[in-house]
Amino acid sequence: MKPTNKNSWRYRLHEIIYEADTPLGKLFDVVLLAIILLSIVLVMLESVRWIDIKYHNILYFCEWVITIFFTIEYIARIITVKKPKTYIFSFFGIIDFLSTIPLYISMILAGSHYLLAVRALRLLRVFRILKITRYVGESNKLVKALKDSRPKILVFLFAVLIISIIAGTLMYIIEGEESGFVSIPVSVYWCIVTLTTVGFGDIAPVTPLGQFLAALIMIMGYGIIAVPTGIVSAEYTKNMGKQDVLGKDYVHVNTQACINCGAQKHRDDAKFCHKCGEELHPENNIEA
Amino acid sequence: MKPTNKNSWRYRLHEIIYEADTPLGKLFDVVLLAIILLSIVLVMLESVRWIDIKYHNILYFCEWVITIFFTIEYIARIITVKKPKTYIFSFFGIIDFLSTIPLYISMILAGSHYLLAVRALRLLRVFRILKITRYVGESNKLVKALKDSRPKILVFLFAVLIISIIAGTLMYIIEGEESGFVSIPVSVYWCIVTLTTVGFGDIAPVTPLGQFLAALIMIMGYGIIAVPTGIVSAEYTKNMGKQDVLGKDYVHVNTQACINCGAQKHRDDAKFCHKCGEELHPENNIEA
Amino acid sequence: MKPTNKNSWRYRLHEIIYEADTPLGKLFDVVLLAIILLSIVLVMLESVRWIDIKYHNILYFCEWVITIFFTIEYIARIITVKKPKTYIFSFFGIIDFLSTIPLYISMILAGSHYLLAVRALRLLRVFRILKITRYVGESNKLVKALKDSRPKILVFLFAVLIISIIAGTLMYIIEGEESGFVSIPVSVYWCIVTLTTVGFGDIAPVTPLGQFLAALIMIMGYGIIAVPTGIVSAEYTKNMGKQDVLGKDYVHVNTQACINCGAQKHRDDAKFCHKCGEELHPENNIEA
Amino acid sequence: MKPTNKNSWRYRLHEIIYEADTPLGKLFDVVLLAIILLSIVLVMLESVRWIDIKYHNILYFCEWVITIFFTIEYIARIITVKKPKTYIFSFFGIIDFLSTIPLYISMILAGSHYLLAVRALRLLRVFRILKITRYVGESNKLVKALKDSRPKILVFLFAVLIISIIAGTLMYIIEGEESGFVSIPVSVYWCIVTLTTVGFGDIAPVTPLGQFLAALIMIMGYGIIAVPTGIVSAEYTKNMGKQDVLGKDYVHVNTQACINCGAQKHRDDAKFCHKCGEELHPENNIEA
Repeated sequence: MKPTNKNSWRYRLHEIIYEADTPLGKLFDVVLLAIILLSIVLVMLESVRWIDIKYHNILYFCEWVITIFFTIEYIARIITVKKPKTYIFSFFGIIDFLSTIPLYISMILAGSHYLLAVRALRLLRVFRILKITRYVGESNKLVKALKDSRPKILVFLFAVLIISIIAGTLMYIIEGEESGFVSIPVSVYWCIVTLTTVGFGDIAPVTPLGQFLAALIMIMGYGIIAVPTGIVSAEYTKNMGKQDVLGKDYVHVNTQACINCGAQKHRDDAKFCHKCGEELHPENNIEA
Repeated sequence: MKPTNKNSWRYRLHEIIYEADTPLGKLFDVVLLAIILLSIVLVMLESVRWIDIKYHNILYFCEWVITIFFTIEYIARIITVKKPKTYIFSFFGIIDFLSTIPLYISMILAGSHYLLAVRALRLLRVFRILKITRYVGESNKLVKALKDSRPKILVFLFAVLIISIIAGTLMYIIEGEESGFVSIPVSVYWCIVTLTTVGFGDIAPVTPLGQFLAALIMIMGYGIIAVPTGIVSAEYTKNMGKQDVLGKDYVHVNTQACINCGAQKHRDDAKFCHKCGEELHPENNIEA
Repeated sequence: MKPTNKNSWRYRLHEIIYEADTPLGKLFDVVLLAIILLSIVLVMLESVRWIDIKYHNILYFCEWVITIFFTIEYIARIITVKKPKTYIFSFFGIIDFLSTIPLYISMILAGSHYLLAVRALRLLRVFRILKITRYVGESNKLVKALKDSRPKILVFLFAVLIISIIAGTLMYIIEGEESGFVSIPVSVYWCIVTLTTVGFGDIAPVTPLGQFLAALIMIMGYGIIAVPTGIVSAEYTKNMGKQDVLGKDYVHVNTQACINCGAQKHRDDAKFCHKCGEELHPENNIEA
Repeated sequence: MKPTNKNSWRYRLHEIIYEADTPLGKLFDVVLLAIILLSIVLVMLESVRWIDIKYHNILYFCEWVITIFFTIEYIARIITVKKPKTYIFSFFGIIDFLSTIPLYISMILAGSHYLLAVRALRLLRVFRILKITRYVGESNKLVKALKDSRPKILVFLFAVLIISIIAGTLMYIIEGEESGFVSIPVSVYWCIVTLTTVGFGDIAPVTPLGQFLAALIMIMGYGIIAVPTGIVSAEYTKNMGKQDVLGKDYVHVNTQACINCGAQKHRDDAKFCHKCGEELHPENNIEA
């Protein structure tokens, strides 16, 4: 590959599409963000029956305009990037592709029966919103914090699952099919709904024993909801560390004493005593 | 503007209305607080049909008495304050105005059709309760803690929203309109209801796949509820723990600069510059 | 009052009733605890219709036996204590009295109409369970932790209330009486149900705008649920402090250096170098 | 018992069944895990009526295959282990037995009436999933963290129970049987459902006073949900933060004692006693 020519159109397009430091690059990102949001709103509106009936053609036209824009953007991303393969098979490359393709597939596969399936595929375009996270710097910290405490949270969730299976099975035996606990999977589902304190109420125990067990499950859920929170909380406190707590108004002081007045706790970089002005001799300081 | 005469009626009235240090000022604040609460209770009672029918005239009369009191108070606030414009366009100035005006508007705009709309406007008077926060000192700390962790919480809520949109769309495809998932916006609404562990149960999945996905969403919600809590918790620990974390090896430094070498961040009790040994003059310290 | 005779029956009875250090005193406390629990179960069972119909006489008899036992216990407590008035008007003195009296009142006030009211009074005996907390030492720590963070939690709950009133009023205007939002108080109740993530679902928004506002309220609730947790969490971490974290396997080390080998970080009470065995001279240690 | 022959089939089988360090041992554990999961899925599917009707014979056959496999595994575990009694009466020994036996019992006890009860017994095989926790190392930490904060959480849950009983009784008196509060136990159940923020909605207050009390209970629940979280959070921070809190001014000390003066708590790398200068012999250290 030739050395990058900083004035070539490919280099400038790359700067606009992939970076947000130049005015044009920033503008592109903002416009893209707006179009992504618009596209999500369109998909949502289309699913509302009366809106779809009334404005079907307008929505369909907008869908196509956005899809073509995304197609151009996708091609531009491939052309301008140095290693197209790396982009195409990267997380965002796949998402970009998946958010472009559905409408084209709906063209090839005709017939009323398939149209519905295509509509479902089009809904995958919702993945495009994931692009937004690119622009938020803070999110990396969050992801890191979640990653750090992931093994603990996973073990915890696994414990929740075991409790759900056992308690769900017990509830199925106790309550029976009359109360809505029609099978063990449904009972386990109810148990997860209860343990996570969601509590839809579509299924609810009616027998005294069932209600007693349900109360136990809830109190247990109340007790263990503390665990993941405690984990993440401690993880966060750990990451923050001493420096954040101290802030810029505090400096570390050492134990060297002034040979003139004996004053202690000087700044680590102090050259003169803060009390009497005598010159300090940090080289004598054993803590160095 | 003339120099403030400490014995003028305007000065004394200002002291009563805006401050709570004198006995009269304190009494005024307590009475105002009671009337605000009473006014909220009145608005609430009026919305209860059978109370409105039975006691309409009494409620209407009380409404007017309170509105007139608030009008007088609002005018008094404008007259007594030095810079009326600053007050009028301040947060509380606007709230004070909004909580006074609705009943007057209901006078001008007559007709049964408009009356209902006016009633809605009158409900805005509920904003008056926001005045109460003025009197609670502790609230500032809370607001600060929330502000400090706001960017993190916002990113987190954004992540919740993305999850809701994707999961909501999937639920719409899986469950269909029979289960109440009539459109993607409604599905997303259901997803937020579930992720936040509220779980109304007005919409609930009935298909096995839908219930499985719902269980995943709930467990996910259970896992990520830990994140905002962890953030605020760490933020609080940070604000609180300063002294504990510092220990005896750290001292507070101030912003005074040495007049000889310009070095900053001296110990609060420093008499000589730690860099050049020049005598410091804390009385000149701008931070005073 | 005469000097306490350690062998008098009153002294011994006081020891049994008020203390749990002697075998008899411990036995008394355990029996009392069991009877309190039994009494609560009896009150509960009595409220279940079919149990009350079938076993009314047995339950009634047991009620009287327990009431007489509690009466004797209450009189014994008054007789044996040195300052009866202090006991009678203490928190537990009042609870002991309230848990004894209801059944007697039901004797004096006859008539089917009053019987129901008396039953309600009898339910107050449930307060007796509060006695149990006496025996749990750990509870004091919990109460202290809650007390320390009470002002912050109160301010927070107040903020929750203001949000509920404003959002409840908005929901009343948006949803109207068809969706169950029949009045502002009911709307505020629904708003508290939603903000606290309880979500009964007896009232639920049906209009798109109402569902959108409900989603906002939920996400807000999700965000602010972190606040009280963060407060208590930080309060707890604070109380634990350094010593708990360190444990007995860690000691503080200072910065003095051995004059022979120069090894640092000796224990504060070290007399000899841990590396070379040379005698240390702590008196030269500036950190002393 | 003879000295263990490292090449005997029993020793090798023990290595495969009980350990996961050799390739065969690892394979066995993975296969066992898969079969346990399969068996749970089978039990679940069997409880779904239409699946049971359609595939009864296949499910029944698979059940037997798995049961026989588990029986062989159980016998192998007893044969290969050195102290069979310790295994049999250990936690996992009992679970292994309970997850093997139900299907055999269903053979002996015939008759349609008993078949249903047996099905319930078979559901106990769900306990087998508990085996999975063996393979997750992280879980021990979680269990430790929960154990450490158990007394505090228990006291807290006890407080929740007292509140539930008192508030439940009050709700029973206020709401009455029309709203679903048919007895005090049911009211207490509702109160736990509400306090834990589950909120099924199968029972919900309808009277203004009942809704007001419910709102109070919810806000209380919102406030106290912070307590267990705070406890676990602090406990975690404590366990985790040791190194961070210690900093460089603290070193770990061990339990070895000086043979000359008996002084303990020497630095881990100490060669001489810090008290008397005697040479230390870490190789004699009992903590090794």
